[in-house]
Amino acid sequence: MIPEGGIGAVRWRGGPDGALELIDQTRLPLETEVLTLRTLEGVRDAICRLAVRGAPAIGVAAAFGLWLGIRDAPEDDVGFEEALARAAQRLESARPTAANLAWAVRRVAAAARAAPGAKERKAAAFRAALAILEEDAATCRALGEQGVDLLRGRGRVMTHCNTGGLAAAGSGTALALVFEAARRGLPVSVVACETRPLLQGARLTMWELMRAGVDATLVCDNAAASVMAEGKVDCVLVGADRIARNGDTANKIGTYSLAIVASAHGIPLYVVAPRSTFDLSIADGSEIPIEQRSPEEVTQIGGVRIAPPRARVHAPAFDVTPARLIAGIVTEAGVIAPVGEAAIAAAFAGAKARGAS
Amino acid sequence: MIPEGGIGAVRWRGGPDGALELIDQTRLPLETEVLTLRTLEGVRDAICRLAVRGAPAIGVAAAFGLWLGIRDAPEDDVGFEEALARAAQRLESARPTAANLAWAVRRVAAAARAAPGAKERKAAAFRAALAILEEDAATCRALGEQGVDLLRGRGRVMTHCNTGGLAAAGSGTALALVFEAARRGLPVSVVACETRPLLQGARLTMWELMRAGVDATLVCDNAAASVMAEGKVDCVLVGADRIARNGDTANKIGTYSLAIVASAHGIPLYVVAPRSTFDLSIADGSEIPIEQRSPEEVTQIGGVRIAPPRARVHAPAFDVTPARLIAGIVTEAGVIAPVGEAAIAAAFAGAKARGAS
Repeated sequence: MIPEGGIGAVRWRGGPDGALELIDQTRLPLETEVLTLRTLEGVRDAICRLAVRGAPAIGVAAAFGLWLGIRDAPEDDVGFEEALARAAQRLESARPTAANLAWAVRRVAAAARAAPGAKERKAAAFRAALAILEEDAATCRALGEQGVDLLRGRGRVMTHCNTGGLAAAGSGTALALVFEAARRGLPVSVVACETRPLLQGARLTMWELMRAGVDATLVCDNAAASVMAEGKVDCVLVGADRIARNGDTANKIGTYSLAIVASAHGIPLYVVAPRSTFDLSIADGSEIPIEQRSPEEVTQIGGVRIAPPRARVHAPAFDVTPARLIAGIVTEAGVIAPVGEAAIAAAFAGAKARGAS
Repeated sequence: MIPEGGIGAVRWRGGPDGALELIDQTRLPLETEVLTLRTLEGVRDAICRLAVRGAPAIGVAAAFGLWLGIRDAPEDDVGFEEALARAAQRLESARPTAANLAWAVRRVAAAARAAPGAKERKAAAFRAALAILEEDAATCRALGEQGVDLLRGRGRVMTHCNTGGLAAAGSGTALALVFEAARRGLPVSVVACETRPLLQGARLTMWELMRAGVDATLVCDNAAASVMAEGKVDCVLVGADRIARNGDTANKIGTYSLAIVASAHGIPLYVVAPRSTFDLSIADGSEIPIEQRSPEEVTQIGGVRIAPPRARVHAPAFDVTPARLIAGIVTEAGVIAPVGEAAIAAAFAGAKARGAS
C-alpha cells in the first residue's frame, strides 16, 4: 500500500471554527493516537514536544496554530495586530531551526495584514493556512517526480530521521522519492538509520515503510559506515530543516556524520526539500541557530534511564552539512546540482518569476 | 578518586576451589550487582549476554571459565584432554570477534598440556588463569604510561564504548591513558559517545568517569562529527577487539564511522590495546569474523520497544577500521606509529625476544 497522498499526520477538520488534528508521533509505532487541538498553545506544545515534527508538517501545524491564535482576536486594527504579532512570536519561538515554521507563520500573517478589513483579515488568514496544507501534498508529489530518476539503477537508499508522510501533509520529502520509485515499479529498498536520540528512523520511518510494503532494514546510526563499506548503499536521501543561500543544510543531528562517511565511500547524498525550507537571508550554515534539546531525551528512552544521574549531556537537535558534501538538492521545481550559491539563486529567480517562492 | 588499579569488574575469589566474581555490566549504572560463577557454562553465558565485556576482561573471564570447566575433569590423559578440548571449544565459540578470548583460552590450555602429570596439569591451568588476571593490571598501567604523552596539550578526548576498569582486570585500555593523565595532573576531559545499541558509553564510561571525577560529557554517537566540527576534540581514543597483521582493527560498531569523521577533521585516532589483541595469523581486517547480535538489542531498550514488531534489523557488534585511519596503536610496550605491517612485525619481534607475546 504505497501512499498516494499524505497519511493524515496533520490535517484540519471542519471550517474556520474547526480544529487541527495531529497523529501524536511520540506514541508511534506502539499506538496511533490522534490529537485534536483548538488553541495556539496546544499546537505550540505539540510542536515543542515533537508530537508533530518534520519541517513541512511543522509549517502546516504552525499555520493553523496562528489561525487558532487569532480566531477569537479583537477585530479592531490595534487589537488584531497585537494578537497577530503575539501569536506569531509564540509560534516562531517554538523551535528555532526549522525554516518552514517561520515561513508558514509569516505567510499567514502577511495574508491577514494584506486584507482590507476586520472580517476579511481573519478569512484571509484561514484561507492562507488551508492553502499551505493543500499545497504541501502537491509539493510532496512534485518532489517525488523531480527526484525519482536519481534512484534509477541505484535504488538501495540509506536515510536518516523521518521524511515521509509523517513529516508532511503530503507523502513527504526524501521518502516521497522512494514512494514514487515504488509506485513506478523501480527496484527500491531502504536502510533506515534509527536516529538517536528520539529514534524517528526506528519508530516512524520503519513504520511508514513497512506499512507501504517497501523493503526496509533498520540499523543503529553508528553502523551506517560499515553498511556502506559492504557496498550495500547506492545513495543517501535526507530532508532538511533550513538551507542557507550557499546550500549549507541544517538537518537532524547525524546528517553531517552521514554526509562525511557517504563522501568517504563515494556515495552521493541528496537533500530533498521544498523551496520553503531555504532561508535566502543567510549566507551560510554558520548563521543557522541550532536548537539544543533536553538532556533527558538522551539519558532516558521510553522512561528507562540509560545514563548515571546528573550525567552532563550535549544534545544538539540538528547539525549543519556543508554544501560541498551534498550532491544535489531536490526541490519541487527541479534538482539543484552542483550545489552552490549561483545555482540556488538561479532556481529562485525562476521561482520568483512564477510567483512561487 | 582516580582508580590506581582495577575496580573489580572481574576477579577470582579464593584458591583453586574458589569462584569467579563479575560486576554484572548489564545492570549498571542503576545497580551494582556482583555475580558469583562456579561453572564454565555460567561464565560462557555471562560472556554471551555481555554481563562481562571488554576484550581484556573477556580474556580473564574466559581463562577462569576454562579452569572451571576442567577443575572436576577426569585425571586420566584421554579424559582430561577430552574435557579440556570441549571446554576450550565452548568458550571460544561464545564470541567470535574478540582476540583476547581465544588467546586466553589457548594460553591456559597450553599451560595444562605442557605439565607432566594429572595433578600438575590442573595446577598449571589454574596458575595460568591467575597469571592472566594479575598481568592485566600491570598491562593496563603500562598502556597508560606508554600513551599518556599523546594527551599532553591535547587532553580533550573523544571515546567510544567502554575501555576503562570495567573492560579489564586493571584500569582499562583507552581510558587508562585518561586516568594516567588525570593522575599526573594534566588537563583532560572526555566526550563519551553513547555507543548504541547497548549503550556502554552512556551506561559504563560515564559511570566510571564520574566516579573518578574526570570531566565527562555524553553525546549520541551521531553527534560526534558536529562536536568535532566545533573544534572541541583533540584526539579520539578507542580500544580494540582484534587487530590484524597490517593494523586493521575490529572494535565496537561505530569505531569505523568515528575514524572517518575524525580523519575528515584532521583529528588523530589512537587504538589502545594490549598485544594479546593482535591476531598475527590474519593479513588484514577482511579476515576478521564480525559477530551479529540479536535484533532485540536494537529494537528494545531496557524492555521498551522502539521499532515496529517484525522490523528487519542489521545488528553487527563490530566494524573494521582500516589501518590508514589509525594514527597509532598504543601497546604496553610502546606506541606503534605509523601503523602498518612492518611496524607491527618489528614491535612483535622485540616482544618475542622478550618472551612476552
